[in-house]
Amino acid sequence: GVALGLWRRHTALAASREDEEDKELRQRFMAPPVSGLRELRRRRRELRSRMELLIMETQAEVCRALAALDPGASFSVDTWERKEGGGGISCVLQDGEVFEKAGVNVSVVSGLLSEEAARQMRSRGKSLKAKDGKLPFCAMGVSSVIHPKNPHVPTMHFNYRYFEIEEADGTKQWWFGGGTDLTPTYLNEEDAIHFHKTLKEACDKHDLKLYPKYKKWCDDYFYIKHRGERRGIGGIFFDDVDSPSKEEVFQFVKSCAKAVVPCYIPIVKKHRHDSFTPEEKLWQQLRRGRYVEFNLVYDRGTKFGLLTPGSRIESILMSLPLTARWEYMHTPPESSKEAEILEVLRNPKDWV
Amino acid sequence: GVALGLWRRHTALAASREDEEDKELRQRFMAPPVSGLRELRRRRRELRSRMELLIMETQAEVCRALAALDPGASFSVDTWERKEGGGGISCVLQDGEVFEKAGVNVSVVSGLLSEEAARQMRSRGKSLKAKDGKLPFCAMGVSSVIHPKNPHVPTMHFNYRYFEIEEADGTKQWWFGGGTDLTPTYLNEEDAIHFHKTLKEACDKHDLKLYPKYKKWCDDYFYIKHRGERRGIGGIFFDDVDSPSKEEVFQFVKSCAKAVVPCYIPIVKKHRHDSFTPEEKLWQQLRRGRYVEFNLVYDRGTKFGLLTPGSRIESILMSLPLTARWEYMHTPPESSKEAEILEVLRNPKDWV
Repeated sequence: GVALGLWRRHTALAASREDEEDKELRQRFMAPPVSGLRELRRRRRELRSRMELLIMETQAEVCRALAALDPGASFSVDTWERKEGGGGISCVLQDGEVFEKAGVNVSVVSGLLSEEAARQMRSRGKSLKAKDGKLPFCAMGVSSVIHPKNPHVPTMHFNYRYFEIEEADGTKQWWFGGGTDLTPTYLNEEDAIHFHKTLKEACDKHDLKLYPKYKKWCDDYFYIKHRGERRGIGGIFFDDVDSPSKEEVFQFVKSCAKAVVPCYIPIVKKHRHDSFTPEEKLWQQLRRGRYVEFNLVYDRGTKFGLLTPGSRIESILMSLPLTARWEYMHTPPESSKEAEILEVLRNPKDWV
Repeated sequence: GVALGLWRRHTALAASREDEEDKELRQRFMAPPVSGLRELRRRRRELRSRMELLIMETQAEVCRALAALDPGASFSVDTWERKEGGGGISCVLQDGEVFEKAGVNVSVVSGLLSEEAARQMRSRGKSLKAKDGKLPFCAMGVSSVIHPKNPHVPTMHFNYRYFEIEEADGTKQWWFGGGTDLTPTYLNEEDAIHFHKTLKEACDKHDLKLYPKYKKWCDDYFYIKHRGERRGIGGIFFDDVDSPSKEEVFQFVKSCAKAVVPCYIPIVKKHRHDSFTPEEKLWQQLRRGRYVEFNLVYDRGTKFGLLTPGSRIESILMSLPLTARWEYMHTPPESSKEAEILEVLRNPKDWV
């Protein structure tokens, strides 16, 4: 009797603790973290755990802010596992009132780097000494592309990620990468300034050199070489950042991740009810085509995903717009609003 | 008086000869050939000249056959020059009644191979010995993608090309490449059989081994690895073909080029007035998205174009559809017509 009573009390306690955990999970995240909340708590001082919590929180923050602006629509949440190791959580809102397609994806994957992926990294100057041709890696990140319906609301992309590779001698290479950038269909200088200023403030807290450096990197990175234009009006971009220290880079990445909502949400609020013409919608569709070109031909993250065996293709290509258009020899008339944005895409400006 | 009379007669004769030439040009081709008709006649026995005439004739044949099916629309013809050497003729019909976008492009370019293009060719097993890092090349071809409006009319692509590279010791490497393939939105077995049978007949005239070999090569080449599906139901594809002899390969390529119209035009005629539902149009748009994925991520011709300095981007990306669509996690219901074509794209069939 006593034993049974004790057992009962024990299960009741365990159950209520689990309820508490479930509640916390539901409040903080879109789904349980890939590594498990208990495991993350156990190794809470490790950077990998703190980064996983940060990307999970960022996902939830952004999804909630977007859903609040598009009340009829809601995010579908898919959790997935990768048989080679790890998994992820993909949140997608499709065909809403405000958003054509909004995806916010978290992935925490580990395993052995593919030959092609290693080659790509080496071509960026990394010396990766493999052991019997094997390079164990761990990569985690949050990435998102938001394509609104209204051509006066810009597309936004952000991605913050952490990478670890174990070399033959057991030493670990690590680095952070990421960025946030804006792709408007039409130029709105006020929005461009707000977006860049918010990013600059996030950077400036850590080092005044960061914003100018990463702003330029962004303009260089999102370059559609075969068109001679950038994908959008930029923002910040960085990769392979491994100094001054893991802690300091993490704090910087955290500031950037926290800046996503204040960067973008005010711009969506301001323009989501703007009226637009069929011609403006058509120009948006042509710009979407260029977005597809960049992502499929040049984007490092997309390429890494396509080259990594067992990666979840639907989550990688979530970044593609719902619809896009290609017209042969489309050229906007001189001094038009279409020519105005093209000019900025060809010759990036300083916004702050 | 006499001298003047003679001169007059001479100019009159020259003018009428030019008129004749112009007339012939207009009848045979969409525009004057890149190398000039006179030059092509002067070196009429050279394979380069015969190939240039063949691709020009093929362009005109296909454009006329398509225009005849879409009477309201007409081809715009752009001739362009490449400052590094050569040029081309792009014929595009856009937003017609029958065709959403139909492009037939001829290019005849020469110059020095870019580092990246050479690397790509070496990765296919070519040993290209450069002289002071330079590899003079000449490439010519006709390529075409036809995207019809009606989802019951398949997309068709063909490309026939000839390549010459001069190595350090002055020897010339040469090869032919090409193929014709079909991308239906819905499977129609009768059409698939007609298409493959016409190609097989063209191949069989030269060697019975060619069709089975190039049919398989086509299924392997047009593979969208990250989706685990082929772009379409295939046809034939070959590259780096340099035996048994220049003359024999040329005759084979000629048969293939002449088969384009009989392969495809009957299928367009048969289905261009078929009725279709909005759901069928939507499925077509999703398949167009896959077409874009293949062309931008994998296609050798597109990649070569994007890597070749001074190449005409509008002509290269002419292959992209007017419109395309990407939905997150779209899966057709089991036993649907959409699932039927997917099954064939995942597991290619033998049609003849």
